[in-house]
Amino acid sequence: MSVNTFGRLFRCTTWGESHGLAIGVTVDGCPPGIPLNEAMLQHWLDRRRPGQNRFMTQRRESDEVEILSGTFEGTTTGTPIQLLIRNQDQRSKDYTEIVEKFRPGHADFTYWRKYGIRDHRGGGRASARETASRVAAGGVAREVLKSLAPSIQVTGWLAQMGEIAINPDHFDSEEIERNPFWSPDGITAKDWAVLLERIRKSGDSIGAAIECVASGVPPGLGAPVYGKLDADLAAAMMSINAVKGVEIGVGMGAASLKGSENADEIVPGADGPNFKSNNAGGVLGGISTGQDIVVRFSVKPASSILIPRQTIDKSGAATNVATKGRHDPCVGIRAVPVAEAMMACVLADHLLLDRGQIGTTRELSC
Amino acid sequence: MSVNTFGRLFRCTTWGESHGLAIGVTVDGCPPGIPLNEAMLQHWLDRRRPGQNRFMTQRRESDEVEILSGTFEGTTTGTPIQLLIRNQDQRSKDYTEIVEKFRPGHADFTYWRKYGIRDHRGGGRASARETASRVAAGGVAREVLKSLAPSIQVTGWLAQMGEIAINPDHFDSEEIERNPFWSPDGITAKDWAVLLERIRKSGDSIGAAIECVASGVPPGLGAPVYGKLDADLAAAMMSINAVKGVEIGVGMGAASLKGSENADEIVPGADGPNFKSNNAGGVLGGISTGQDIVVRFSVKPASSILIPRQTIDKSGAATNVATKGRHDPCVGIRAVPVAEAMMACVLADHLLLDRGQIGTTRELSC
Amino acid sequence: MSVNTFGRLFRCTTWGESHGLAIGVTVDGCPPGIPLNEAMLQHWLDRRRPGQNRFMTQRRESDEVEILSGTFEGTTTGTPIQLLIRNQDQRSKDYTEIVEKFRPGHADFTYWRKYGIRDHRGGGRASARETASRVAAGGVAREVLKSLAPSIQVTGWLAQMGEIAINPDHFDSEEIERNPFWSPDGITAKDWAVLLERIRKSGDSIGAAIECVASGVPPGLGAPVYGKLDADLAAAMMSINAVKGVEIGVGMGAASLKGSENADEIVPGADGPNFKSNNAGGVLGGISTGQDIVVRFSVKPASSILIPRQTIDKSGAATNVATKGRHDPCVGIRAVPVAEAMMACVLADHLLLDRGQIGTTRELSC
Amino acid sequence: MSVNTFGRLFRCTTWGESHGLAIGVTVDGCPPGIPLNEAMLQHWLDRRRPGQNRFMTQRRESDEVEILSGTFEGTTTGTPIQLLIRNQDQRSKDYTEIVEKFRPGHADFTYWRKYGIRDHRGGGRASARETASRVAAGGVAREVLKSLAPSIQVTGWLAQMGEIAINPDHFDSEEIERNPFWSPDGITAKDWAVLLERIRKSGDSIGAAIECVASGVPPGLGAPVYGKLDADLAAAMMSINAVKGVEIGVGMGAASLKGSENADEIVPGADGPNFKSNNAGGVLGGISTGQDIVVRFSVKPASSILIPRQTIDKSGAATNVATKGRHDPCVGIRAVPVAEAMMACVLADHLLLDRGQIGTTRELSC
Repeated sequence: MSVNTFGRLFRCTTWGESHGLAIGVTVDGCPPGIPLNEAMLQHWLDRRRPGQNRFMTQRRESDEVEILSGTFEGTTTGTPIQLLIRNQDQRSKDYTEIVEKFRPGHADFTYWRKYGIRDHRGGGRASARETASRVAAGGVAREVLKSLAPSIQVTGWLAQMGEIAINPDHFDSEEIERNPFWSPDGITAKDWAVLLERIRKSGDSIGAAIECVASGVPPGLGAPVYGKLDADLAAAMMSINAVKGVEIGVGMGAASLKGSENADEIVPGADGPNFKSNNAGGVLGGISTGQDIVVRFSVKPASSILIPRQTIDKSGAATNVATKGRHDPCVGIRAVPVAEAMMACVLADHLLLDRGQIGTTRELSC
Repeated sequence: MSVNTFGRLFRCTTWGESHGLAIGVTVDGCPPGIPLNEAMLQHWLDRRRPGQNRFMTQRRESDEVEILSGTFEGTTTGTPIQLLIRNQDQRSKDYTEIVEKFRPGHADFTYWRKYGIRDHRGGGRASARETASRVAAGGVAREVLKSLAPSIQVTGWLAQMGEIAINPDHFDSEEIERNPFWSPDGITAKDWAVLLERIRKSGDSIGAAIECVASGVPPGLGAPVYGKLDADLAAAMMSINAVKGVEIGVGMGAASLKGSENADEIVPGADGPNFKSNNAGGVLGGISTGQDIVVRFSVKPASSILIPRQTIDKSGAATNVATKGRHDPCVGIRAVPVAEAMMACVLADHLLLDRGQIGTTRELSC
Repeated sequence: MSVNTFGRLFRCTTWGESHGLAIGVTVDGCPPGIPLNEAMLQHWLDRRRPGQNRFMTQRRESDEVEILSGTFEGTTTGTPIQLLIRNQDQRSKDYTEIVEKFRPGHADFTYWRKYGIRDHRGGGRASARETASRVAAGGVAREVLKSLAPSIQVTGWLAQMGEIAINPDHFDSEEIERNPFWSPDGITAKDWAVLLERIRKSGDSIGAAIECVASGVPPGLGAPVYGKLDADLAAAMMSINAVKGVEIGVGMGAASLKGSENADEIVPGADGPNFKSNNAGGVLGGISTGQDIVVRFSVKPASSILIPRQTIDKSGAATNVATKGRHDPCVGIRAVPVAEAMMACVLADHLLLDRGQIGTTRELSC
Repeated sequence: MSVNTFGRLFRCTTWGESHGLAIGVTVDGCPPGIPLNEAMLQHWLDRRRPGQNRFMTQRRESDEVEILSGTFEGTTTGTPIQLLIRNQDQRSKDYTEIVEKFRPGHADFTYWRKYGIRDHRGGGRASARETASRVAAGGVAREVLKSLAPSIQVTGWLAQMGEIAINPDHFDSEEIERNPFWSPDGITAKDWAVLLERIRKSGDSIGAAIECVASGVPPGLGAPVYGKLDADLAAAMMSINAVKGVEIGVGMGAASLKGSENADEIVPGADGPNFKSNNAGGVLGGISTGQDIVVRFSVKPASSILIPRQTIDKSGAATNVATKGRHDPCVGIRAVPVAEAMMACVLADHLLLDRGQIGTTRELSC
């Protein structure tokens, strides 16, 4: 069972290192007959691209995706879809410092302990560059969702940077695409700009929290006990670089609630049941209820900072290390499109899994 | 790919419903030559048993486990180990109320929407009774750990109940087995007793947070990118009934930190590297560092409460529902041994997975 | 990835040893809403039972199957179905001879080399007793087929014993259930009775070939490239004890044919395409064509014979070994219901897999 | 659970269509620290290449393989290895005839029935071009074998073409690389040349049988019950295009044998047990014995022949079809390196699987 693949029926195997020739993903198990071309996928990759704005890493990648197989005359054939993205701006010389040293908080040490060998350039397989592959796969998943469950909408945003959280009262989904932070709160976006500049100038980095919501999801997705939708989402988000915590609905806050406060009461509605609240985050017993699926996760601040940190080298001797050159003050920003991609892939997978076992067409209205 | 199995090499398939004849688990892929008998497993099941104290559900189950296969003369043979636990105290009559109604916050509604049929008695497959199977499997995993990595210690405790958290300054691991809450803080345990009695009398329930730590874990466990140790732990814990959030190390708090604060600096130590902090929770890049693996998760308050709640019935009409009879005011307490079991199973699985791909014996000192 | 599980969506994990307390199987992924009870499964187990007639092993097992989970009020719930069969007639004393010795042609040697430990009684996990679990699982699969693809009929028979093959001109499917050999040719059945008695008296054993046909299979089942229907059938049959070769359609004979002879020409028919021949055995490119799926496999003669054979013992010294007591002169006979069970399971699995990826309802007419 | 992946720990996912831009394979789970470069893989691809000699298809492909990830400074890193081969000589115009028609014996009909869409050019995903990916993956597997079990040698050859089989008395392994048929019998190679020319001129095709042997395999590989080495080999070979039967050791011939004839007796030898015969083909109970692993399979004659055949078109109307242009009179020849590649991959997978569960280093002497 591959550790480089996620999904059970809609399966995505990513490959590639930060400074290798290319990165990519094999999407396997996609239903046939779905319109698919490069432009559709390129849209999602362009949103993610580094170098988009001055707040993200200045690595210049066009991230042009090629579809090498799995389609015929613009439609999926049901055979594996190979997506390839050539690496362009590797700048290996920036990383010579860390051939011998381990950056604290980074996977340098653990990859070396596990494999006895590591590609030190840019973080190798541990690099966030791998997330471009996920976004490409997410693009395919979105087309599957359009076909099978067109009511589904997936939206992600930055909910917090450092200690500054968005104000829910100022939530405006259209604001998300307008500022460089994917913030749904324009005022907080300005505060973040100030914070981030300060952090960047000091050579430091800052953490973030991302929220991703899927609306219009049919009830019934998810497969107890170990294919639960929330467990799969937790694994999907936790697998993203730098994630340290994942919440569904009210999340860690559930610990403080009483049953009379937490359970979402149900009343009859025009198109089916209405829930009076959504502490469940759209999932009960591991299966979707029809409500918005609400996932939230934290991204730790990047370990590659300009401030020297204590560490050891390969021989075990004490030393210091500091990153030179490229430095991403808030990697969490770029995780927003990645979160959306993972949500789309997990939902596509569960749509197929559900119809495999159950067979009936899901009513799309909630 | 089974949705009722977890693990890749050390695989556990649980089966059974709350009110069926029996529950159990098939543990498949266990190495041969490991001493194993019922008494070893019974120890862990006895810790978990309902009816242990007045604070947990009064369902009387002896939870006697039988080993039906996979051992010969007290040693594992490498063939599948079938563990079976007969159900005894089903009390079906307590559940007739909910044949037609859906308890808010419970899986009643979603199981019915997905499968078109549900075993309403006690929650069927969604019942926490399934966790007895996990604890049995965890017992086998612990024997595997003893054999392959005897330095590993797994300990769980209740860290928070409602809004009352333990005081880290009063942490005493020996206290954990002494009070009915698995609390490492004797003073807080008393406060919880008071809180819980109040909750129980009011017919309500309360949430909790559990923490589970594995110490002595060799570095190198975990398989990027989608077999990351933390992603597998997140899925494992999220799959436990009623869990809504999972954290590794500093968890959701990582969002507020700066890089200079978060990264755990490394200095040389007598037996290898020493880390000056553990915000990482023992995992970097999805691989264990050798530090304590720290996982924390929230358990929502149970949905089966005596207070009437608004809901609908199968026909969609408005109604109320309230649980009668058995009522567990804090299901989180019982999740402590389950967390330990999941931690043990995931670690056993990753030990086998790692030696499969890499082959070398892991140095056990950290 | 379990090595004790077969199937991808309709998954069966067997467990249990020949002389352990019980054997069984967990059937996981069965669609909900399918009528299922013990009597349905018992029917198939009774057909297989040893002691049925004087030509098969005289081990007396009632093979009574219990359904411990996965159904509610006589219908599958979509949750795992646990089937259990208690062992009764173990007669351990018959096997003391082989604690130290390895029977040539048997798995004694290889289990010992692999695991360093083996349950020598009756062959442990390698025993043909495991096939009872398969037949039980096959019973569930047949109910799935009835529900999802009622046109499918699965029939197996003995096609050859030693050098005596059935005469295709005398083929009568109703004869199969009438004689103790599952022979569709009544005349050859008599010849086999004579042959087998001679073999049995000489303390020897004899090989056999089994054929299994599934008719009424919708076209479109099978998933290239590595989920091909014929590859899955080959693995399924090869996994049965003592199987040494598997053929689809014309099988090994394809090597001698010319393309103009081999390809099955297609002509229009009343209900869809008609094929003028079936060298393909119902599978092309790994996908079912709608024609009869024809599988054939060889079963080697049993290694447990009364004639002394040269071997070594655990210390490596030369010795002889001969089986005492129970002795099955032709194990191939009992493989007939097992072949049918495996065919049913593979087809059920592929029905679910196909509707998972493709979704459309298959037209059942061929 | 991917249907486009084979293997459990050493996993290979192939992708690409005959007339797409490229084909390739992701090899995932390879141990780290193994020397690997393009030249090593190119060697095996060059052996397989069409256009090698006048007896194989005249499609001109250089089959140049690129390693896009998974190595660093010439050594595997333990991360996924992406191999890519660009398609060059697609000649789409040769296939226009079959846009509307189904070639009998070919997957045209079944792909169309299953997916509702098919890439008709060259057979799309069903094309034997996919086997180039397997041979590339096999190249990686061979390097793994060199590292982990250097005693293993994998050799394949053509054993039969049409009705002409090799003469075992003339077996010379060095002859295999000297003639265009991979025949170990130089005299029969000449007879095949005559036969094939006759077949080619008549516009027909002919079947073949391939044999593949792995010597020096440590005992203990294979995982009962459903991860049996022979079952995995059967599936691996059956998944190759045009294969209709697979045999291990004495294969289908086991049906005719008596137990006293079949079982391979064991006598003590200088370096461990010696077997007096090898009807088992090196596998007992699904586990390797240490003897040569002997696999044999049939390849049906190609369906693309110049002789018109009766068929239907997409509308169901009767018509004829005949291939124009490229025509491979014996596709079985090219299956020889593919058989070796599959054998290498299955053995590499089982080496990793075995050490994952058992952990001990296998003694390589038999």
